[in-house]
Amino acid sequence: MDLLKEDVGYVDLTTVGLGIDNEFGKIIFKAKGDIILSGLSHVEKICNQSSLKYKIYKRDKQKVLAGEVILICEGEAGALHKMWKISQNILEYCSGIASYTNRLVQKVQIHNPNIVVATTRKNFPGAKELMIQAVIDGGGVVHRMGLYDSILIFPEHLEFISDKQELEKKFQELKRQHIEKKITVEVDSYEDASYFGSLGVDILQCEKMDDKSLQQCINLKKQYPNLLISATGGVNETNIEHYAKLGVDLIVTSSPYHAKPADIKVVIEADKSWKIIDSI
Amino acid sequence: MDLLKEDVGYVDLTTVGLGIDNEFGKIIFKAKGDIILSGLSHVEKICNQSSLKYKIYKRDKQKVLAGEVILICEGEAGALHKMWKISQNILEYCSGIASYTNRLVQKVQIHNPNIVVATTRKNFPGAKELMIQAVIDGGGVVHRMGLYDSILIFPEHLEFISDKQELEKKFQELKRQHIEKKITVEVDSYEDASYFGSLGVDILQCEKMDDKSLQQCINLKKQYPNLLISATGGVNETNIEHYAKLGVDLIVTSSPYHAKPADIKVVIEADKSWKIIDSI
Amino acid sequence: MDLLKEDVGYVDLTTVGLGIDNEFGKIIFKAKGDIILSGLSHVEKICNQSSLKYKIYKRDKQKVLAGEVILICEGEAGALHKMWKISQNILEYCSGIASYTNRLVQKVQIHNPNIVVATTRKNFPGAKELMIQAVIDGGGVVHRMGLYDSILIFPEHLEFISDKQELEKKFQELKRQHIEKKITVEVDSYEDASYFGSLGVDILQCEKMDDKSLQQCINLKKQYPNLLISATGGVNETNIEHYAKLGVDLIVTSSPYHAKPADIKVVIEADKSWKIIDSI
Amino acid sequence: MDLLKEDVGYVDLTTVGLGIDNEFGKIIFKAKGDIILSGLSHVEKICNQSSLKYKIYKRDKQKVLAGEVILICEGEAGALHKMWKISQNILEYCSGIASYTNRLVQKVQIHNPNIVVATTRKNFPGAKELMIQAVIDGGGVVHRMGLYDSILIFPEHLEFISDKQELEKKFQELKRQHIEKKITVEVDSYEDASYFGSLGVDILQCEKMDDKSLQQCINLKKQYPNLLISATGGVNETNIEHYAKLGVDLIVTSSPYHAKPADIKVVIEADKSWKIIDSI
Amino acid sequence: MDLLKEDVGYVDLTTVGLGIDNEFGKIIFKAKGDIILSGLSHVEKICNQSSLKYKIYKRDKQKVLAGEVILICEGEAGALHKMWKISQNILEYCSGIASYTNRLVQKVQIHNPNIVVATTRKNFPGAKELMIQAVIDGGGVVHRMGLYDSILIFPEHLEFISDKQELEKKFQELKRQHIEKKITVEVDSYEDASYFGSLGVDILQCEKMDDKSLQQCINLKKQYPNLLISATGGVNETNIEHYAKLGVDLIVTSSPYHAKPADIKVVIEADKSWKIIDSI
Amino acid sequence: MDLLKEDVGYVDLTTVGLGIDNEFGKIIFKAKGDIILSGLSHVEKICNQSSLKYKIYKRDKQKVLAGEVILICEGEAGALHKMWKISQNILEYCSGIASYTNRLVQKVQIHNPNIVVATTRKNFPGAKELMIQAVIDGGGVVHRMGLYDSILIFPEHLEFISDKQELEKKFQELKRQHIEKKITVEVDSYEDASYFGSLGVDILQCEKMDDKSLQQCINLKKQYPNLLISATGGVNETNIEHYAKLGVDLIVTSSPYHAKPADIKVVIEADKSWKIIDSI
Repeated sequence: MDLLKEDVGYVDLTTVGLGIDNEFGKIIFKAKGDIILSGLSHVEKICNQSSLKYKIYKRDKQKVLAGEVILICEGEAGALHKMWKISQNILEYCSGIASYTNRLVQKVQIHNPNIVVATTRKNFPGAKELMIQAVIDGGGVVHRMGLYDSILIFPEHLEFISDKQELEKKFQELKRQHIEKKITVEVDSYEDASYFGSLGVDILQCEKMDDKSLQQCINLKKQYPNLLISATGGVNETNIEHYAKLGVDLIVTSSPYHAKPADIKVVIEADKSWKIIDSI
Repeated sequence: MDLLKEDVGYVDLTTVGLGIDNEFGKIIFKAKGDIILSGLSHVEKICNQSSLKYKIYKRDKQKVLAGEVILICEGEAGALHKMWKISQNILEYCSGIASYTNRLVQKVQIHNPNIVVATTRKNFPGAKELMIQAVIDGGGVVHRMGLYDSILIFPEHLEFISDKQELEKKFQELKRQHIEKKITVEVDSYEDASYFGSLGVDILQCEKMDDKSLQQCINLKKQYPNLLISATGGVNETNIEHYAKLGVDLIVTSSPYHAKPADIKVVIEADKSWKIIDSI
Repeated sequence: MDLLKEDVGYVDLTTVGLGIDNEFGKIIFKAKGDIILSGLSHVEKICNQSSLKYKIYKRDKQKVLAGEVILICEGEAGALHKMWKISQNILEYCSGIASYTNRLVQKVQIHNPNIVVATTRKNFPGAKELMIQAVIDGGGVVHRMGLYDSILIFPEHLEFISDKQELEKKFQELKRQHIEKKITVEVDSYEDASYFGSLGVDILQCEKMDDKSLQQCINLKKQYPNLLISATGGVNETNIEHYAKLGVDLIVTSSPYHAKPADIKVVIEADKSWKIIDSI
Repeated sequence: MDLLKEDVGYVDLTTVGLGIDNEFGKIIFKAKGDIILSGLSHVEKICNQSSLKYKIYKRDKQKVLAGEVILICEGEAGALHKMWKISQNILEYCSGIASYTNRLVQKVQIHNPNIVVATTRKNFPGAKELMIQAVIDGGGVVHRMGLYDSILIFPEHLEFISDKQELEKKFQELKRQHIEKKITVEVDSYEDASYFGSLGVDILQCEKMDDKSLQQCINLKKQYPNLLISATGGVNETNIEHYAKLGVDLIVTSSPYHAKPADIKVVIEADKSWKIIDSI
Repeated sequence: MDLLKEDVGYVDLTTVGLGIDNEFGKIIFKAKGDIILSGLSHVEKICNQSSLKYKIYKRDKQKVLAGEVILICEGEAGALHKMWKISQNILEYCSGIASYTNRLVQKVQIHNPNIVVATTRKNFPGAKELMIQAVIDGGGVVHRMGLYDSILIFPEHLEFISDKQELEKKFQELKRQHIEKKITVEVDSYEDASYFGSLGVDILQCEKMDDKSLQQCINLKKQYPNLLISATGGVNETNIEHYAKLGVDLIVTSSPYHAKPADIKVVIEADKSWKIIDSI
Repeated sequence: MDLLKEDVGYVDLTTVGLGIDNEFGKIIFKAKGDIILSGLSHVEKICNQSSLKYKIYKRDKQKVLAGEVILICEGEAGALHKMWKISQNILEYCSGIASYTNRLVQKVQIHNPNIVVATTRKNFPGAKELMIQAVIDGGGVVHRMGLYDSILIFPEHLEFISDKQELEKKFQELKRQHIEKKITVEVDSYEDASYFGSLGVDILQCEKMDDKSLQQCINLKKQYPNLLISATGGVNETNIEHYAKLGVDLIVTSSPYHAKPADIKVVIEADKSWKIIDSI
């Protein structure tokens, strides 16, 4: 998607209407507070698309402190005003997600340095690319991007399988054929978890389980040493440490996708000393 | 953007891997709590794209009560599993925005039935279409979709104008030429507001002003009877009533774009009595 | 849309078939007559897309005199022949529209320096971007880009409203909610004009009215000082002055979209002294 | 390109703002004068895209008499108002081109029933598909769609060839290799025409020649019985018969692309007896 | 990508030029030899896009015997001729890949019913979707779709890592973070294989190894019971059984992407008894 | 189509997961054996898209000898790993097609230096652009790109024409109208060939004829001196010389589209001496 076009459309009525589009100036992007930066690679593309000169001061994934400069671009006021808000918007939304994800990671790793924070495929529709990259920039992983990159059996799949015998046959065939992937099953009770543990599942994704059931599932790891336990359902910044303490291997959450955007300070300055190079 | 493709990619590994994609069944979407529905028109397109039979029970903009059915689709498990999450996601995000917007409207109209709740162009990059439609479904308006549909002078425009004389000339020319549009100026002090009021601005967009300054701006309406006062900057569900009480005409906010998604309950059921019609 | 691809497709059969595509040369674009230049920003994109070196001598919106150079590009004959006609075509069509629009503006401003020439949304389907930008380059404004950027009530809307009481309620609600926009109604009689004037319409768009009726509508401005009168329907270069003299505020026309393309002279010259830099 | 989206964008502010989008009605498209119909196949796609019921009364290429119905669609006012103007626009522009082309064909065939009216690739940039189909619907052919479908040597190609010897070698190789295509050369003098005739060119495209030179070129047909003569440059409705009388085989023109749009009458009617089927 | 448009472009010159596009008829697709069917879901989309009536006799993944009917479509000759070759082409290429893949699977499963045939990401550029789906229809899996769905360390990654200590740290961190995925390393010697086995790799992808080295790698499975051995590099129909006999778990190959297209017999028949329903 | 995106998706999990994406290095592409190079212009676009520095050593259409360098790119490991396989893939597939086509041309021109090798429109669906350009790079021509660029009557067209009288009328009208194109008819018997020869066809495309019939068709050239004979159906590298010897003018084949990809050697090297310029 052409993000610049989405915001600008055919013309910037105000800048053109004021007759200032051929003036020269610069735009400076700074962090207002401390953030994990994300979205800058997309803003760079917008700079290139706009034929602006620019200098990058930080990279995606870096921690940027309050007041530090991220990017400065120079060029005509018309181009600067066109790229201003969409670039700010990309940096604010993506850095918001990256910073939130990073806080989740910090919180859980106090309790277990090996625990993984993963996000679901429940991104805002149409925004998967930016959201996924922001999660990774923040130190998370993406549990599954969509239906094409992972195997995850929901109870809604079992609805189409008539009995345990058929299920076991299908499960073994799935496991046999998709030998390069780990097989995950979402369960909501210890009984189901135990059953799929016995079938040789790689990962049990425990959906909104109470602590007792979840603990029972974790205990299955003694029986099945390669088994991984994942907790999911309603996990966010306020409760994630609880799951880390319980001892799961993995926490799957959509909460970073709803993170508050970061604040990016933008300053636009005119530079009257410049001239249009090729004009007569 | 092809939202179905974004989520499904080239293949649904799990459903195909389990060999259940040609089974038959139905999927039912219901509201978990009371919501203002939004996003359904996009889900209908996904149903058509998926060659599913479906029945619509509600329409976008309608209030749907907890437990009420929104949509039922019938077809093969492969198609149902492909459309499940992206459809749920669209309905949840959009209805979340619509319901939040609607709450804002309800809150302010207690104090002033004429007041308008409008949203900024600071939508998630790439998600403008869904977010804008959700705001409208919720009873809000879109302050500006982008740079192409409205005139809004920021202080960042004035940076390129050397003095008041030039500004006044440019402002009058802008106003003269764009006679079919209202001219808005964003101001952050009463002094600026008063100055642009004297130039004949149509709308003063007061950015993060304290109550006293904002009240002074509102008082300018006595002097300029056609002048409209808009409040913006940090407005959300918790403080919007305050602005309504002050007496502004319009409140501009980005907060609906970050609304918590609504909960949509989805049930998938197999129907063993069905047969694939054209198969041998 | 990729305009270069639309014209070139997969291969330039002639240039490649003659085996001259790796020769070097330059292409020069000049105005044949005096024009208002438009389309150059799109041609620049084609130059970048083609990896050509180029120098810009003029900018969109500028008046270019007969014989003046607009653009010179240098590179391989294959790239020059690919970009030749589509670039010429863009400049000719867009400058034709801009120049025509500019003539309309010149004509009406003799009679009234405040009058505005605006174009409809009846552009050639698929060519809205180029056509809109050309109108603006020529000094016109765009009355409405589409259904998304303005409010315009046609008689065809009233068809769905049962009586005056319902109409008045709906009209006031529309006006209340869309407070940041001016409300326009298209009318074809003084009676309708007068009625909507009384409802508080912002702009009356008078469609193909005779002079007497139009004059009556203009007289409504005495009664409603903020009311604007727009004339539309069949306005073009030959009759636009008539409307300007009558005293309307705004003239809405589609005629620039059908303007005769401007003549752009193109010269291609070989430069045998050049060498392909990276070849062996 | 999504023509409906180009015109509608994210929302029809007026129809939705008036709250009439869920009313029912029909839209009727009729010819105002006699036309050769074109563009209807694209309007059908828009009807399908809009989930409207519709009935086709005429087909592209047919002559439609003044007052005859072309198309009737039924559905919600929201969908009808969205498709109205873009559909009318497509039919008007395309039927304008088809009707103009057809007049050219009628005019020349009085003098020579075998003569062909062909159009250039100088269509409005981005509108090639609609324009080409309209020309064909009107009884013309497309001389060349772009650089990919035909061989046409311009003087601008010869610039990259050093002498006659090299030219003759390249010409014969081009002819040998592209044996399935006819080779056309654009010439502006009898001398060049005669020279390329001697090289075995298939078609001489005579650019803005005076009658005497053109007649000399036509006389080359006696010497080269398979040679075809094409006239081009400034041909339009007012002068095309002159070329037909001179005896050329083919006339190449861009004039249909600038044809005046046909008038299509549109009526929208409400139907209060209808009900939304699936609503509650 | 719009496959129909790729083949048809703006017009079918022959069918329209013969004036037969509005005649009626049917098109029948049959298998010439026994095949595993693939591509039909894409052909169905083309049928819908073409507004053709059609009946499906087989489904993708099914074995279709020589002479059996796959699909019959009815409609106008114009639409039938447009969809003919691209539909045949899709079925031939995809069924060719599916049938070849299936033969690979049959061959290896004689020796080991658990062995998996997987294909690389070296599909024809731009044809990933069709090729991947054809492989799956034939009973294979896709080793990796691209860089986004799997972890595979090449020697070319190690180039950027300075020493073993850094490698081991990075490898463990990769494994820790991507806990939901299996980690594959491509190796070309037993020494490397043994080393990565000791680091805890999940899958060793043995690239063009001689039998002795490959056997040594397979023997590592005794030491690391969860380790999987994959053979890759130059595997095709003629040598795949050899690898199966050696005892690898997985064979990764690009050979299905170059499979000979299957033969699909197409018959087009006129039906003079039909009438255009809506024409006058 | 964005070929880089097709292969990379949202993220390169391995390179990013190893934390080496910001290291520096270079990638070198060489020919493994002698090839006719093709696809490089697309790889250049990928280099630009990736903001890589690069140097081109060869051009498309050139013969590249085993071991010669084609391209070297420098930049970050993240960008190099992203562009590696898709670039190699483009060069391998396209150079494979170009080299195969070139071998066909070499083989037939021993027997007749004027004979033309042309390819059908039966390219892999979605890959027309790359395949067509590769054929041309190899010295072939494209018989027809699709339905839009040439006239070719199949027996399947005749199905919709009731008798010889109608056929002859339609054939002459087609020939008259499409005077700038050569008319081809596909025939499978001498009788049909002779009949269409008598109607004035330009090219007879002889489909899978036995030698005797084909020789008879070739003999028709004595009777119709401008008639061209084309052989098609099952022609490939092993049998093409046979057709050349028989004396046809043109050989039409799909076989280059299935050519074995060429081998391109790729080396990636780290360069520890580099620094990220703009980072802090």
